[in-house]
Amino acid sequence: MAINTKMSEKLSMKNCSDLRLTTAAIAILALLVTAAYSQQQPCATASKFGPADQVGNVNYITPEKTLAAAKLVTKGKAYRLGIETNKNTPAFGTRTFAITVLQPGQAGGISLGPTKTTYNDDIIAGWVGIGSQIDGFGHAGIDGLYFNCNKAADFSMPDGLTKLGVENIPAIATRGILLDMAGYFNTDIVKEGTAFNRAEIEGAMKRQGIASIEKGDVVLFYSGWIKLLGKDNKRFITANPGLGREGARYLASMGVAMIGADTANFEVVPFENGAGIFEVHQILLALNGIHLLENMNTEEMARDRAWEFLFTLGPPRITGGVQAFANPIAIR
Amino acid sequence: MAINTKMSEKLSMKNCSDLRLTTAAIAILALLVTAAYSQQQPCATASKFGPADQVGNVNYITPEKTLAAAKLVTKGKAYRLGIETNKNTPAFGTRTFAITVLQPGQAGGISLGPTKTTYNDDIIAGWVGIGSQIDGFGHAGIDGLYFNCNKAADFSMPDGLTKLGVENIPAIATRGILLDMAGYFNTDIVKEGTAFNRAEIEGAMKRQGIASIEKGDVVLFYSGWIKLLGKDNKRFITANPGLGREGARYLASMGVAMIGADTANFEVVPFENGAGIFEVHQILLALNGIHLLENMNTEEMARDRAWEFLFTLGPPRITGGVQAFANPIAIR
Amino acid sequence: MAINTKMSEKLSMKNCSDLRLTTAAIAILALLVTAAYSQQQPCATASKFGPADQVGNVNYITPEKTLAAAKLVTKGKAYRLGIETNKNTPAFGTRTFAITVLQPGQAGGISLGPTKTTYNDDIIAGWVGIGSQIDGFGHAGIDGLYFNCNKAADFSMPDGLTKLGVENIPAIATRGILLDMAGYFNTDIVKEGTAFNRAEIEGAMKRQGIASIEKGDVVLFYSGWIKLLGKDNKRFITANPGLGREGARYLASMGVAMIGADTANFEVVPFENGAGIFEVHQILLALNGIHLLENMNTEEMARDRAWEFLFTLGPPRITGGVQAFANPIAIR
Amino acid sequence: MAINTKMSEKLSMKNCSDLRLTTAAIAILALLVTAAYSQQQPCATASKFGPADQVGNVNYITPEKTLAAAKLVTKGKAYRLGIETNKNTPAFGTRTFAITVLQPGQAGGISLGPTKTTYNDDIIAGWVGIGSQIDGFGHAGIDGLYFNCNKAADFSMPDGLTKLGVENIPAIATRGILLDMAGYFNTDIVKEGTAFNRAEIEGAMKRQGIASIEKGDVVLFYSGWIKLLGKDNKRFITANPGLGREGARYLASMGVAMIGADTANFEVVPFENGAGIFEVHQILLALNGIHLLENMNTEEMARDRAWEFLFTLGPPRITGGVQAFANPIAIR
Repeated sequence: MAINTKMSEKLSMKNCSDLRLTTAAIAILALLVTAAYSQQQPCATASKFGPADQVGNVNYITPEKTLAAAKLVTKGKAYRLGIETNKNTPAFGTRTFAITVLQPGQAGGISLGPTKTTYNDDIIAGWVGIGSQIDGFGHAGIDGLYFNCNKAADFSMPDGLTKLGVENIPAIATRGILLDMAGYFNTDIVKEGTAFNRAEIEGAMKRQGIASIEKGDVVLFYSGWIKLLGKDNKRFITANPGLGREGARYLASMGVAMIGADTANFEVVPFENGAGIFEVHQILLALNGIHLLENMNTEEMARDRAWEFLFTLGPPRITGGVQAFANPIAIR
Repeated sequence: MAINTKMSEKLSMKNCSDLRLTTAAIAILALLVTAAYSQQQPCATASKFGPADQVGNVNYITPEKTLAAAKLVTKGKAYRLGIETNKNTPAFGTRTFAITVLQPGQAGGISLGPTKTTYNDDIIAGWVGIGSQIDGFGHAGIDGLYFNCNKAADFSMPDGLTKLGVENIPAIATRGILLDMAGYFNTDIVKEGTAFNRAEIEGAMKRQGIASIEKGDVVLFYSGWIKLLGKDNKRFITANPGLGREGARYLASMGVAMIGADTANFEVVPFENGAGIFEVHQILLALNGIHLLENMNTEEMARDRAWEFLFTLGPPRITGGVQAFANPIAIR
Repeated sequence: MAINTKMSEKLSMKNCSDLRLTTAAIAILALLVTAAYSQQQPCATASKFGPADQVGNVNYITPEKTLAAAKLVTKGKAYRLGIETNKNTPAFGTRTFAITVLQPGQAGGISLGPTKTTYNDDIIAGWVGIGSQIDGFGHAGIDGLYFNCNKAADFSMPDGLTKLGVENIPAIATRGILLDMAGYFNTDIVKEGTAFNRAEIEGAMKRQGIASIEKGDVVLFYSGWIKLLGKDNKRFITANPGLGREGARYLASMGVAMIGADTANFEVVPFENGAGIFEVHQILLALNGIHLLENMNTEEMARDRAWEFLFTLGPPRITGGVQAFANPIAIR
Repeated sequence: MAINTKMSEKLSMKNCSDLRLTTAAIAILALLVTAAYSQQQPCATASKFGPADQVGNVNYITPEKTLAAAKLVTKGKAYRLGIETNKNTPAFGTRTFAITVLQPGQAGGISLGPTKTTYNDDIIAGWVGIGSQIDGFGHAGIDGLYFNCNKAADFSMPDGLTKLGVENIPAIATRGILLDMAGYFNTDIVKEGTAFNRAEIEGAMKRQGIASIEKGDVVLFYSGWIKLLGKDNKRFITANPGLGREGARYLASMGVAMIGADTANFEVVPFENGAGIFEVHQILLALNGIHLLENMNTEEMARDRAWEFLFTLGPPRITGGVQAFANPIAIR
C-alpha cells in the first residue's frame, strides 16, 4: 500500500490545540505555537533573489564576473578537482555504491554487423553522496524548512525533488579562490576539529596575498586532509578540519556563490562547542543559498600555489537530484 | 555459481588447430587464422601516444592550447550543454533510470540535534548512457578489440573496467568549435539520415568563418535535432542526422580531441550505405582515440552564433565507468 | 553530510513544554501531552506474545496446526499464488522495477574452461512492493508506532529495519481458506469500493460450507479483481473491493495468522466512509500482528472450488526487509 | 549508442570456411566444424518433455507425486531452508547487495490522514545470486547453448531472459529427501573438495534407510558446511564438498526434479580432476533439466533426522529472472 498525502496540520499542533485549558492559556499557547511554526513573509530561508529563486548566490555570477574570471587564466594549466567514486570511497554509514558493466545484446559472444561492433555499457546503483559532490539546496534544512521557504512535504518526493533539484544549477564559470589552510597553520594536514572562522580566513588571505573575496566567488579550502584519502579512510570520514559557523556567516556576508573543501564532511567535525548537527550546512544551504562542494582535491593546486583561477562546473543534470557528482575544472 | 577466468585461446582457434589436416593445409590454416586473430605490433587500435595511453587525443590539450582557448572568452557568457537525465529522457531499448530521495535517520519525523537539522539524500539506479554523456574508450570496439590494443576479456570486468575507465579523463579545457549544420542546410532541423562528411564540414566552416580545425579541439555539431527532445522523443531516439564515416576520418586526421552532437546516437542514423553498425563510433573511439559527446544541447549557442569558445568538461569520476554523465561548460 | 541521531524529544512536545503558563495549566498540559504521546505498558500495538515477539499471530501456527492442515491435501494439486513482477506490473506511483541480465567474465565472447562454460547472472533494482508480496510488520504504523511498541525512530534505518524485518518470518505451513467473494456477490468481478465485513465474510463461509475460521489460519479473499491484471492495469491499481475495518477486526478476533487478497491494495479502496488512509493495514499489521498478502492469484483455486487447503510460504529472507516478494504454494 | 542485432554467423566459423585449402582438407574441416558447432535434432540439451518445455524434470511432479508427498507429513514440523541475504552474505567476487528503507511521502515528518498512517517501503539493488537461491535454466550453458536447445543470443536479453526465466517454475510440492553426508562421513563438516558420487549417495541412503530416489524428488545434501556461515565466510565461499559429475549423472538418471546443498557453490569445489568449470552445473541445468538450490540451510533437519518430507517452493516470479531468491519450506 502507498499513498502520498499532505497533512496540513502537524500532529503536535493538533494535540496542543486539543488541550482543554483556560481561555487565557489557550491564547498564549496559540500565540507561541504559531510563532514557532508559522512562516512569516519572508520566511527564515527566503532568498534575496525572490520567491521563484532556486539557485541562490549563483545569481551573482554575471557575464562580467565570468569575463573577469577568464582573465585569471595566465598559464593554461587545468586541474580536475574530483576524486574517484567507487565502492571503496569513504562514505557515511549506510551509503553504498556499485557499478556494473555489461555487453547488451552480445550474449553468446556475438558481435554486431559487418564491422563486428562490440560494446560495453554501464549501470550504477548507489548514493550520490559518495566521492566529489555538490550539495544542492534540497540537502539540508531546518526542521523541514529548506532554502527559499520550501518545506520538505511540498517538494521532497520519493522519486525526486520537485524543487531545488540540482538540474537547476546553471553553467558555473567564475572566479575561484583557494585558501591554503595547511599553509596558514604551517602543517601538512590540519588537525581534525580545527574550525576555520573569520580570523583564519583573513589570516590565510593575507598570507597568500588575496586582496578580497567578492560576490559570486567560489572559495575552496585546502587543509591537506585529502592526503588521508586511501591511506586512512576511517580517519578521513570520521572527522576533519573545516569551516565554522562564524566563518560561514562571514563568507555568506560577502556573497560567495559556493564553498568547497578537501574533506568529506565539509564543515569542521567534531562540531564547534554549542553547534548543531551540521549547522554550517544549514547556515550555508538553507539560510544563505550557498552551494557546498565536498571532497575537492586541491592538492596539486596548493602545491602550485594556484590561489586565484577560473572555476568551472557543470554537474550532471539528474532531474530532482539532491546532490550531484561534481568534478569542477579549475584553470589558471 | 560464478567464476572469472580468462581463456587464452578462443574456441574457434582451438577447433581449427585441432584439425588433423595435411601439413600444408595446416600451415595455410595457421597463417590465415593468425592473420585474422593475432595482433600485430602495433595493433589496429594502437594509440599514437604509446602503449600506456588511455586518453587518446586528449593528450593534444596542452597548457598552450588551454591558454589560447581561454582568450576566446570575450563576452563572459557561459553555457551548460547538458540535458536532463530522468526516467523520461529518451534512451535505448533496455536502458532505464530511477532516482530515489529519502531522509536517512529521520523515520518517525525526527530532526537532528539542537538546530533541528533535517536532510534529504538521493540514490540513483540506472544506466549511465541516458541523457548527456561522454563515451569513454571502453564503450565501442571491433570484435572485442578496444582502443590501444585492449581486449575486452582483459579489461571489461562486471564491476567496472580495469582500463579505459572514464576516471582517467583529465581536466578538459580547450578550444571548442560549434558547426551549425542546421544553418548550413538552411533548415531548422536537419533531416534524419543526413551524413556530415568532409564537404559538409568544410562548407559549414566556410559559412561560419572558421578558419581551421586544430589538434586538441572539441568539435560540436548543431543540427537542430535537440528541438525534438520532449516533443517527439520517439523520433529523437530512433534516428538523426550526424557524422558520417568520411567525416569522422577527416576530423580524426586533424587531431580533434572530442566530437559532440545534439543527438542521442551521435552518428548518422540510419547508417550510411555499406556502413557497419555504429561504425563511426568504432572509427573514433577505437581506431582514433577520440571521445564522443552525446545529447549536447547547443541550441542557445547556435542562436547566439557562439562558434568558437573555451570548452571545459569534468565528468564524474566513477571508477571503471564506460560512459559518464556529462554537462560541459562552454564559455565565450 | 549525514548523521543518524535519535532525538528523545519531539519538537512539538518541546514547544508545548516551553510555554509559560500558569502552574495549573502546565499541569493539565503535561498530563494531556503525556497521555497523547507516552506509551503505556503495554502500548497500543503490544503483542499478546510478549515484548520480544516479532511475528504476531504466526505464533498460532503450531505443529498440531500444520499436521492438521497437511491432511487437507486430498488431490495433490498445488497452486502458485504469485503473479509476475516486472516493470509493467501495476504499482504505486513512484515504485519502479528493473532487472538486468549479464554474463560476468565473458566479455569478448569467451567461455570458461574445457567444457566451455557460459553463464548468465541477474541483478534487480527496484521496490519490493511490486507484484505478489507479503507486508511485514515494519510496513504500516500509527504515527510512527509499529507492531509491538516499536517506534520508527528505533528500528527503521535507511539500510534495513533492525526489528520486524521479513527475515524473521518462520516457515509457514498452515490451513488456508479461500473466501470466494465473487461467488458470494454472484458476479465475475466484485465492484471497487465493496467492503468485506462480518456479514460478507460469514455469508461467503456459509455459501461455501466453511464451518469456522480458526487461530493460525490464512484467509484469502477472491474477488475476481485479478482478472483485470494485464487487461486494465490502471483500474487494477487505483481501487478494488476488499476487507473493511469491521471485517478486519472480526478476522483478528479469530486469531488468523495472515490475510490475503487478489488485489494490489489489499483493503477496500476507496476507503470506507470515515476510515483513515489504509486504516485496515494499521488494524492488521500494527494493532493485531497479522501479515498481509497482496496480489494473490487465486483465480484457478476459485475455479476449482479449492476452499480449504494446506498453505505454505517461504518468502525470501532479505535482512531488514519491509515487504517480501511472495509466491505461496497452496495444496489440496 | 546501442543496438541489438543477431549475427547468424559466428566469426570463427566464417574464418574457418574462408580458408583456401585443398578439397579434401576442406571436407574434413567442414565435417569437424559442423560436428563441433551445429546442432543436431535434437540438440545436446534437448528436453525429453518436448521443444516447448522450459521446466525440465519439474514435469515429473504430478498430482499423484504431490499427494504421496503430503502423506510424509507426520509430525507437523515445518522448516524454512533459506538463509538471509544481505551485504554481508558471502557471495562471489563482484556480487553485491543493498537494501534501502524509506518513508515515501512523509518527508517533513508528516503522517497520512485521520488515523495518522505512517509507513516504510523498501528497495533492493543487488545480484539475485546472493543467499539462498534457485538456479534457473538460463544460468549455466555450454558455449552459449542452454537447456532445451536455447542459445544465449536468442533468449539472453539485457533486461531479462525471454525464455527459461524463473517465472516459469510452477508450484513445487513434492517428496524431499535429505542426504546426511556429514553423518555418512561421520564428521561435523565434510571437508572441501569431497565429491559426492554414486558410492557416497548410495552409502548415505543405506545408512539413513532411504529405499529409493524417484522421479520428481528433490534431493538435498547436508554436509555441515552451513555451520561455517557467519563464522568463516571466506572458507565458506571459496570451496566446499558437493556433488561430483558421476553423482550428478546418477541422480539425473533417476529423474530427480531439483537438487540442493547447504553450500554456496553447490557442486564440489575444487572441481574434480579433469572436470570443467562448474561442469556439474552444466550437467544438471543444461543437459538434464534439473534445477539447483544453493545455500539450503538443512542444519535443523539433519539434527532432527528429517530424512523424508514434503518439499514446497514458490520462488518470486521476477519475469526473465536467471536465478531466484529461494526459501523452500520442508514439512514432515
